Amino acid sequence: MPSPIDFYFDFSSPYAYITSEWIEALAARHGRTVRWHAILLGVAFQAAQLRPLTDHPIKREYALRDFARSARAEGVPFVQPEPFPIPTQNAARVFWWLAEADPQRAAAWARSCFRAYFARGVHLADPEALKTLAGEFGLVPDEAEAIWHDAKWKERLKHANEAAVAAGVFGAPFIVVDGEPFWGNDRKQQIERWLAQGPF
Amino acid sequence: MPSPIDFYFDFSSPYAYITSEWIEALAARHGRTVRWHAILLGVAFQAAQLRPLTDHPIKREYALRDFARSARAEGVPFVQPEPFPIPTQNAARVFWWLAEADPQRAAAWARSCFRAYFARGVHLADPEALKTLAGEFGLVPDEAEAIWHDAKWKERLKHANEAAVAAGVFGAPFIVVDGEPFWGNDRKQQIERWLAQGPF
Repeated sequence: MPSPIDFYFDFSSPYAYITSEWIEALAARHGRTVRWHAILLGVAFQAAQLRPLTDHPIKREYALRDFARSARAEGVPFVQPEPFPIPTQNAARVFWWLAEADPQRAAAWARSCFRAYFARGVHLADPEALKTLAGEFGLVPDEAEAIWHDAKWKERLKHANEAAVAAGVFGAPFIVVDGEPFWGNDRKQQIERWLAQGPF
Repeated sequence: MPSPIDFYFDFSSPYAYITSEWIEALAARHGRTVRWHAILLGVAFQAAQLRPLTDHPIKREYALRDFARSARAEGVPFVQPEPFPIPTQNAARVFWWLAEADPQRAAAWARSCFRAYFARGVHLADPEALKTLAGEFGLVPDEAEAIWHDAKWKERLKHANEAAVAAGVFGAPFIVVDGEPFWGNDRKQQIERWLAQGPF
């Protein structure tokens, strides 16, 4: 049985959002499953001494244009959210709580968070907005809030960040297939080729 | 008549090398020509406060793997050169000298430099190696050397760097089609789509 595809993402990454919209279908076409990993990109950036794309004044204007264009190229709805980027630990802790019982439901929560932030402008870092989203998703809002305040799930996310850095992750989306790392939504074609024919 | 495609590159950029191997054919398929711009990426990096990809310890290993894989994906011969990266002002000054009389010959020189460095390991920053390459290309080696020491062509390259930064260039390859900027060899599909159907 072929090994699952590892998909690392931060809920604040527009390129990871676009990838989240195609990766399951691509994997399924090649008989693979996807292991979703919610992480905090800030931790990976710190480990790699990097800065967010939009921090560089000259790059910011280009990046905003490319986010939207890359979404259109993939046929994915996209509205540049404000504020951007945002801290996403609360959504990520809920992800890991769901993942313990049911990884597919956690992946559905991830897609729901991505779409809320990047297509509807739902501010995931705002506790009230995130509780409302949790309710729409079928969770008990107060229970979701209790999860993101719980030391156990803070620790679980911390562990996920450390595991990602240890696996060489320094950006998002970061996809690993059979040990081969691919960084960026724009590596879709190469991932597809790898899945179809193996190493090239 | 549709406007030319502007293609900005540094001879030390592996992704720009890969792009140099497909951009003329892609443009021709869509009735376009290509304006080649040899620049020094270090100047653009400085303006944007960026660092080369391989400067980041965690990114370096990935980058070296991705250079070679991206070349294979495009069917372009590639052998990671050492040393890397290198200063490329001498090859770039010869480029601008040729461009004044014949832009197509300058583009041919650019392709020749790229292939020499990235497929045959010719060290472009070494004056003797570059003189030999100039001779193979049909130039008089000593004349080429005189060009890269000439204040006129130093100034011409400086002007090209400044014009690139003013045009928003902060990396290589950087491609501008009808005012739309595309950064990276991995934007080939989007460029192709733009050329085929216009804005999307």
